[in-house]
Amino acid sequence: MSGEKKVEQITARDVDFGQWYTDVVKKAGLADYSSVKGCVILRPYAQALWENIRDTLDAMFKATGHENVAMPLFIPESLLQKEKDHVRGFAPEVAWVTHGGAEKLTERLCVRPTSETLFCEHYAHIIHSWRDLPKLYNQWCSVVRWEKTTRPFLRSREFWWQEGHTIHATRQEAMDETLRMLETYVTFAEESLALALVKGRKTDSEKFAGAEETYTMECMMHDGRALQSGTSHFFGDGFARAFDIQFTDRDNKLCYPFQTSWGLSTRIIGGIIMTHGDDNGLVMPPRIAPTQVVVVPVAAHKPGVMEAARSLKETLTAAGLRVRLDDSDQSPGWKFAEHEMKGVPLRAELGPRDIAAGACVLVRRDTGEKRTVQRENLPGAAIALLEEVQQNLRAAALLNLERRTRAAVTMPEMADLAGEGGFIKTMWCGDGHCEDLVYEATGMKSRCIPFQGERLSDSCIACGRPAQDMIYWGFQY
Amino acid sequence: MSGEKKVEQITARDVDFGQWYTDVVKKAGLADYSSVKGCVILRPYAQALWENIRDTLDAMFKATGHENVAMPLFIPESLLQKEKDHVRGFAPEVAWVTHGGAEKLTERLCVRPTSETLFCEHYAHIIHSWRDLPKLYNQWCSVVRWEKTTRPFLRSREFWWQEGHTIHATRQEAMDETLRMLETYVTFAEESLALALVKGRKTDSEKFAGAEETYTMECMMHDGRALQSGTSHFFGDGFARAFDIQFTDRDNKLCYPFQTSWGLSTRIIGGIIMTHGDDNGLVMPPRIAPTQVVVVPVAAHKPGVMEAARSLKETLTAAGLRVRLDDSDQSPGWKFAEHEMKGVPLRAELGPRDIAAGACVLVRRDTGEKRTVQRENLPGAAIALLEEVQQNLRAAALLNLERRTRAAVTMPEMADLAGEGGFIKTMWCGDGHCEDLVYEATGMKSRCIPFQGERLSDSCIACGRPAQDMIYWGFQY
Repeated sequence: MSGEKKVEQITARDVDFGQWYTDVVKKAGLADYSSVKGCVILRPYAQALWENIRDTLDAMFKATGHENVAMPLFIPESLLQKEKDHVRGFAPEVAWVTHGGAEKLTERLCVRPTSETLFCEHYAHIIHSWRDLPKLYNQWCSVVRWEKTTRPFLRSREFWWQEGHTIHATRQEAMDETLRMLETYVTFAEESLALALVKGRKTDSEKFAGAEETYTMECMMHDGRALQSGTSHFFGDGFARAFDIQFTDRDNKLCYPFQTSWGLSTRIIGGIIMTHGDDNGLVMPPRIAPTQVVVVPVAAHKPGVMEAARSLKETLTAAGLRVRLDDSDQSPGWKFAEHEMKGVPLRAELGPRDIAAGACVLVRRDTGEKRTVQRENLPGAAIALLEEVQQNLRAAALLNLERRTRAAVTMPEMADLAGEGGFIKTMWCGDGHCEDLVYEATGMKSRCIPFQGERLSDSCIACGRPAQDMIYWGFQY
Repeated sequence: MSGEKKVEQITARDVDFGQWYTDVVKKAGLADYSSVKGCVILRPYAQALWENIRDTLDAMFKATGHENVAMPLFIPESLLQKEKDHVRGFAPEVAWVTHGGAEKLTERLCVRPTSETLFCEHYAHIIHSWRDLPKLYNQWCSVVRWEKTTRPFLRSREFWWQEGHTIHATRQEAMDETLRMLETYVTFAEESLALALVKGRKTDSEKFAGAEETYTMECMMHDGRALQSGTSHFFGDGFARAFDIQFTDRDNKLCYPFQTSWGLSTRIIGGIIMTHGDDNGLVMPPRIAPTQVVVVPVAAHKPGVMEAARSLKETLTAAGLRVRLDDSDQSPGWKFAEHEMKGVPLRAELGPRDIAAGACVLVRRDTGEKRTVQRENLPGAAIALLEEVQQNLRAAALLNLERRTRAAVTMPEMADLAGEGGFIKTMWCGDGHCEDLVYEATGMKSRCIPFQGERLSDSCIACGRPAQDMIYWGFQY
């Protein structure tokens, strides 16, 4: 028999956060590299996490009347070019298909980087009358953007996401939808993923290509950098005009409809890692964890231990928990380290002494706290502990966000604070040129203009002219 | 206000089965065409059906220990070429990516037509010891094959599917898995989709490129043609040798593992349409139907009708049924025709007189039978009727299969029967040349060699030499 597998070590976060991230992705078994640069494989643990994300969000979408569709992978070059801002934003980073089998195509096809153009073409086919509106569509798929620098989950040439595309009879209805979907993302990120974030409107220079307005949630990572984690775009009737989508209203008048799109991707997995992870590896928020409780038998060879472990697993599973029994022949110590690396929120240890005492030991991943629980108090005790872990992760993320959000009124003040990262909030005049000035002085980009900003001073931090809004700045992933 | 929408007419099956199929796909709102030839859009109704198929099959896969992963979309040309039979089979029909943004790639990438090569590359990374085996992986994705002739669902350049890829320590284990997954498909097709089929082994000439053996289920359509609806492949250690995947066994010896793959695609939606549909449109098997019961209020403007319809919907939904209330302002007649076209298995009509009588009318899609049911007998009556519809569809499909399966002993006999389509069973010597002879004489191709064939005669139908097996022949989609 081969020897026991080694417990793998990872770099500490304080030593090298980037290397820590890479170590966690690999050693927790989340992703593997393929031979195409920048394209990763989602291994079973990451895919299970993504499916939990998908199922949770999908239920939220369906509860608000959205329907799923599946659009083609390919966009003809001429279709991509119909909306001018949009093509300018995406053409430089798409992958081009030029041949089908041995034959050269008469027109190049790009692999979708996003599907606005495909939805518009379809909408032009199916929307004729006010009766056909609204359409609230969504799809789950992968998209391709030919990025130069890539990192698993955070920036890859192919990534998985959902893209919602809706179309409405009125401007107001479309704007309401845009904001509703941003709030859906925020609720999901805060409640299911225990992330901490600020939300608001993007500046013109940071908007999505072709959008009138882009709204975003920006999550604060452990190292003080921000992660744009979900965006919702309001298109007005720009795409409808470019693609000639029109409908007859109730008064028999031809009108252009109004559109939105909104997306959340596997990038959010990077956000989970970098918000909750620690020097022992991943820490999964219980509500989304692929495995919520791992049962580890101790002295598994002794009579009755495996049977008791199996029965414990069944008890917890029957209560609706996602449970795994590790019945491999590795040592308990190896298993403890392995499931810590994978961030399983709760470990249930069970050995002969526990069995004799009618108990098991529950160990929290976040605090390491051990608690001996009588079997008759399960699964209630496990459910309560999981909820405590969820709340604790959320509180820690919020504390990090709070600690890392500072205000600045002058540029020297801001340049001084910028060294520590985090969000810096300042006043801003609304001019893109001042964003450039801030970037040159601090390396920070605008993250978003919150819906309700504070009044920190009367003048723009960069130019001193009258301030229009409060704005968040930060270093970004 | 615009006028009421028209009830759309479709071609009768007996007049033109191909046109009937095209009409149903369009008028039931299943698919729309995109501007890329051969690439379709799955509209919400088809996507909802596909998600029910996915969720049902996925639960069957997970119950047998399979895990989902997500593999990249792209395969470098050199990787595709590693297994010689495989590349010969697929290279002529792949789409090639040659440019990323403005840059020409140093190596062409094909858009995956199937992912054996990607799984093999990954397995070579992660499999080292007997402890790493087996891996039972699956993925849900779309794949691309540059077909010349396309039809929605049946043959398209992009289609959605699942592809299982497993790897095992022994030949026997891999063969067991190959057959287990064929049986999983058969159980699903018969029990959830009410299809009628024969199953067995493909001849060498019909095997998957790179497989030692391919197993298939072949469903019989209403018009007498066969639809290959799910296949399971045994690779032996051929791919492992080509990709240099090796593991150390318990005796510390280096060995090649054994592999399988198996797939079922959106093609099966074509099978559902062509098995159960009738001249009024689709007929959905209740167990997989996106909507199982549609509630249609009659005289909806009268007081209390909409409230009663909503309450009826809630009663049925609470019982676990998938229910839709059609509260649009179309007429009841239009709604009846529309939901017949969509094949909703059961319609619940509810008007003032029904409400006064404390009843509603349930109408079966398959037989048109109406039954007045007291409200206190719901949802039990609806659940029982849905089960009757399911069994009736299955019985009708089986009857069609039986009626269309005939035996032949001589070539003139077979040529005579072939005009009516269906399955023709004959004896066969095992020589591919005789498949060519049968094709030339009848236009039929071999479908499969069943696991337990009958002994119809002693000699091959084509060459007269001693027969090895009984075999099914048929025209195919």
